[in-house]
Amino acid sequence: MTALDITHDPKRTSWVASANVAGCDFPIQNLPFGTYSRAPRPHPRIGVAIGDKILDLRMAKLIDTDDMNVLMAATPEERRALRLRISEGLASGSALQAAWESALVDHSAVTMHVPCHVGDYTDFYTSVHHATNIGRQFRPDNPLLPNYKWVPIGYHGRASSIIVSGTPVKRPQGQTKAPDAAEPSFGPCKRLDYELELAWFIGQGNALGAPVGIDAAEQHLFGVALFNDWSARDIQAWEYQPLGPFLSKNFGSTVSPWIVTMEALAPFRAPFTRPEGDPQPLPYLDSADNRAQGHVDMTLEVLIQTAKMRADGQAPARLTLGKLKDAAYWTPAQLVAHHTVNGCNLQAGDLLGSGTLSGPTMDAAGSFTELSVGGKQPFTLPNGEQRTFLQDGDTLILRGWCEREGAVRIGLGEASGTVVA
Amino acid sequence: MTALDITHDPKRTSWVASANVAGCDFPIQNLPFGTYSRAPRPHPRIGVAIGDKILDLRMAKLIDTDDMNVLMAATPEERRALRLRISEGLASGSALQAAWESALVDHSAVTMHVPCHVGDYTDFYTSVHHATNIGRQFRPDNPLLPNYKWVPIGYHGRASSIIVSGTPVKRPQGQTKAPDAAEPSFGPCKRLDYELELAWFIGQGNALGAPVGIDAAEQHLFGVALFNDWSARDIQAWEYQPLGPFLSKNFGSTVSPWIVTMEALAPFRAPFTRPEGDPQPLPYLDSADNRAQGHVDMTLEVLIQTAKMRADGQAPARLTLGKLKDAAYWTPAQLVAHHTVNGCNLQAGDLLGSGTLSGPTMDAAGSFTELSVGGKQPFTLPNGEQRTFLQDGDTLILRGWCEREGAVRIGLGEASGTVVA
Repeated sequence: MTALDITHDPKRTSWVASANVAGCDFPIQNLPFGTYSRAPRPHPRIGVAIGDKILDLRMAKLIDTDDMNVLMAATPEERRALRLRISEGLASGSALQAAWESALVDHSAVTMHVPCHVGDYTDFYTSVHHATNIGRQFRPDNPLLPNYKWVPIGYHGRASSIIVSGTPVKRPQGQTKAPDAAEPSFGPCKRLDYELELAWFIGQGNALGAPVGIDAAEQHLFGVALFNDWSARDIQAWEYQPLGPFLSKNFGSTVSPWIVTMEALAPFRAPFTRPEGDPQPLPYLDSADNRAQGHVDMTLEVLIQTAKMRADGQAPARLTLGKLKDAAYWTPAQLVAHHTVNGCNLQAGDLLGSGTLSGPTMDAAGSFTELSVGGKQPFTLPNGEQRTFLQDGDTLILRGWCEREGAVRIGLGEASGTVVA
Repeated sequence: MTALDITHDPKRTSWVASANVAGCDFPIQNLPFGTYSRAPRPHPRIGVAIGDKILDLRMAKLIDTDDMNVLMAATPEERRALRLRISEGLASGSALQAAWESALVDHSAVTMHVPCHVGDYTDFYTSVHHATNIGRQFRPDNPLLPNYKWVPIGYHGRASSIIVSGTPVKRPQGQTKAPDAAEPSFGPCKRLDYELELAWFIGQGNALGAPVGIDAAEQHLFGVALFNDWSARDIQAWEYQPLGPFLSKNFGSTVSPWIVTMEALAPFRAPFTRPEGDPQPLPYLDSADNRAQGHVDMTLEVLIQTAKMRADGQAPARLTLGKLKDAAYWTPAQLVAHHTVNGCNLQAGDLLGSGTLSGPTMDAAGSFTELSVGGKQPFTLPNGEQRTFLQDGDTLILRGWCEREGAVRIGLGEASGTVVA
């Protein structure tokens, strides 16, 4: 994992004043990457978020590409060198301030894009609590399948329908079948759900046929963003046997626009441990480094703002608050090692979804199907409205941040989307 | 579906003499697209197969791109116009012969590539016989799941590991668990299988949120190639619950280099019918045109050449011979209509796998797990060798062709791959 350096120094401040405000998602210790465009130019460019500004990396003469995937494919050494140059240039007192002020863009004036070209998107299932909660709805006596604690379960998702935060999500239509119906029927999804996930992005790829060992795995990770894997539960229930979810998932998946790098996460690494009595991972998924600091200590939150709340001027209400390391049974390095152990080739920009990050208690459950127990127990919002699943006009917001004593808090921004008919 | 025109005229011959040999895969009525490179230039270019030659489309001044996906995204009218120009120019007596002779390349002198950039790859499960054969191994009393005859079952595959015919396939390693073992073990796959499939390629895409109706579906199909979805059955059995196959499939999928266009398939269209007593498709999957000519009458063949056969100078031996329309329970148009009905966006170059195209009888079964009944009954080759699954050194070859009275036979070439340790 990345060693701490001057870019993590909690005493470092920026000449971009908004970056120094306590609680800001994008202080100088963060420096996440994203792609943005600004009217009248539609062409996306690469920027780094700093406070409420964006540093345009090409205008700052730091890179000569607009292709995020090229930047992501750089070696970890090149990435760390770029981070150091950005941090030095944005630091209070930098001689570059005068030159770089003209490379700053107001965050509020731009359109953000999906941060890179996602060649392949894989979705994992890393929360043992989510797997248990969902399994209980199908198999009350035997909720967790026998492979779960051995195999980081994953499956392929749809890359083309990944959309950036703020894009409306159209309620899908499809086939569903009520348990007591003789035949399926066709119409709009009635059980539209969200899933609180993280998107781990691949940096350097590996060649086909060349597995990545667990201790090299983090060298292939670029960073992380928030991810909402919208799900049509009624379509899913009818279609998913025997090959897994398909149309219930691929109508849209919302990603937050800023990729927080592995370097920025360095101060927040945490041990990976297994509960007493659980099997230890097979050797290809195990290492001393992964045990010592394979996890990330990150807080995750889900909020909802219904159309009524918006009309009444009410702020979004919390659905979920939990900790990544309490939810995820596998670390990001284990996902990379598992994904490639058969020789599968990962490429820069590939997205590894964490799966729904439900924590051990219901206030940390990461989907409505858990909060409402499969739609049986309506969830009551602070204004008295009830939800089993999402209604048209509901806005769903994911947030995430890392904080600890002695480090400057960093945030992931947000991934939001509003359901439309 | 495409109307017949002069490019389908069985009397038309080419000034490329090898294209006029009976039984040739690439007569002037075919004209499939592929990408090739020729040393010392590594950059792929677009060509059309004609006999044992390749017409370089840029050298023939027919296009000004080397990007197959750009060509695939053209409108059906533009594609038909290009086909007409190629057919006229290659026809016997064409005034373009002198100019185009210098745009011909020997097929034997080039390296073929995966024909286009595959953004997303979806694998379907269109053979009811395959689904039944596999289901019987797991559920003898109830082999076919209740959704099968209603839902064109599909799931997402891995695009990055799609390889072109001729590329060796490395036996994957991974977790497996014997039924009587207490814990899984790790090692090379012991039940490596092939799957006889077709790859349907998308031409024009659709926007996210905009379903493609069944009668518009073929306007979005570009053409078809052969596809071997190599499968590690022992890894699959342990990993696939509850989200479907993953590492058991994504270590490599072999595609043939030539995309035979929907225009070339026009003389071989066939009716889509359901067996007596089966439900009719829901309205979004049904149309008069699909019923009249939604299918394609194509013959598919699988051959194997073991290391011993190669050493003994023996030709490949047939494993499978069958008919596409006997195997596929859904038409290509139905796959497009289903895939997009929830608003999922398809893009030029996307690949829709047919799933294993097993016919109604065992001599048309499209995988070893069917031929050997899950590895229980070894399959005997003509030289006396036996196989339950693939061994290192085995070469697996898929072939396909269309023929009928009054039309010139066209072929898909082949998709081959040799298993290496």
